[in-house]
Amino acid sequence: MSHEHTMELLRSMVAEREWGQFHIPENLAKSIAVETGELLECFQWNSEADIGAVRSELADVLTYAFLLADSLGLDADEIVQSKLRETRIKYPVDLAKGRSTKYDRL
Amino acid sequence: MSHEHTMELLRSMVAEREWGQFHIPENLAKSIAVETGELLECFQWNSEADIGAVRSELADVLTYAFLLADSLGLDADEIVQSKLRETRIKYPVDLAKGRSTKYDRL
Amino acid sequence: MSHEHTMELLRSMVAEREWGQFHIPENLAKSIAVETGELLECFQWNSEADIGAVRSELADVLTYAFLLADSLGLDADEIVQSKLRETRIKYPVDLAKGRSTKYDRL
Amino acid sequence: MSHEHTMELLRSMVAEREWGQFHIPENLAKSIAVETGELLECFQWNSEADIGAVRSELADVLTYAFLLADSLGLDADEIVQSKLRETRIKYPVDLAKGRSTKYDRL
Repeated sequence: MSHEHTMELLRSMVAEREWGQFHIPENLAKSIAVETGELLECFQWNSEADIGAVRSELADVLTYAFLLADSLGLDADEIVQSKLRETRIKYPVDLAKGRSTKYDRL
Repeated sequence: MSHEHTMELLRSMVAEREWGQFHIPENLAKSIAVETGELLECFQWNSEADIGAVRSELADVLTYAFLLADSLGLDADEIVQSKLRETRIKYPVDLAKGRSTKYDRL
Repeated sequence: MSHEHTMELLRSMVAEREWGQFHIPENLAKSIAVETGELLECFQWNSEADIGAVRSELADVLTYAFLLADSLGLDADEIVQSKLRETRIKYPVDLAKGRSTKYDRL
Repeated sequence: MSHEHTMELLRSMVAEREWGQFHIPENLAKSIAVETGELLECFQWNSEADIGAVRSELADVLTYAFLLADSLGLDADEIVQSKLRETRIKYPVDLAKGRSTKYDRL
């Protein structure tokens, strides 16, 4: 299940439907927000949610996030790993351990 | 740049900081929404955005989306590919070509 | 503390800064989403939140929601009361009492 | 069309359905985010949107924002006017005029 194969499938789905014209970065960012609202709806009144519904809405969030990365020539795993290196520095283990406090208040 | 390696790095970052206790699915869903707001801020008054800022905020969205998938035993690429098969059926090429119309109005 | 006075104050603040040019409905909708992300951040890892922070972020959400209503010639109270009449019908008391179920599953 | 009357109508609608138990601040904040996603969907692929759809989704955003304010003993107009006084100071007319720049970069 390679990510590169996912991207090839997404790109051909979009190309076949001539949807590239709608997929400017701003519209993809709005689309992530639309789908995130649907994901959050799974948890609207409860901490527990139906896993099938979460799976489906999370897939939509990821789809638009992958398409936004691709539209900017970015690789999803690369930017996550790059940001992770920053997070490790902003949240040193000895200060952040067991705490959900934001870095500027650690 | 494999996705499995990204997940190993994310899991060890979380484990070292003992953040697993905060990473229940509901909190991760809220976190995706928080970061999506920051992503959208890049486009608040413009269609154009600073690519460095978008890269950074999109990385945060993806990080929490990957962690939510992982917390439910799901693989990001697998659920995206699975949803894509549904999308192909809901949006047949001959009906959807060149149109941004939602499937229930096609 | 009349709502009409709030609107006069908001309109003059915007006019003095010549911000009307940025306040197209789409940008105001994105702005509501940006501020909603900040509101949700108050509850990111907890059900409890600092009331001062919630008050401040909720004020931002309401500000943009009032400006969006105004930009479309709508009155906030009127559209809420109008929607409330629909909600009363979609969620009859005898079916909805004590349940958070969505109307299409009642 | 007074705001106090809107609040009385909202409170009695909620009380009749015994929904107060679900309306903790965190759930109302999530609900604002869910409805904001639906509002943004009106603008997902376009700057133009159907005004009837925007009116309906904006009413939902406002309803939950009014209920959140009420659950914390806050008045919507009061917190907007209070925040507006801060905004006037953060964005002095001579610096902010005709610019959408964020206050920390003015």
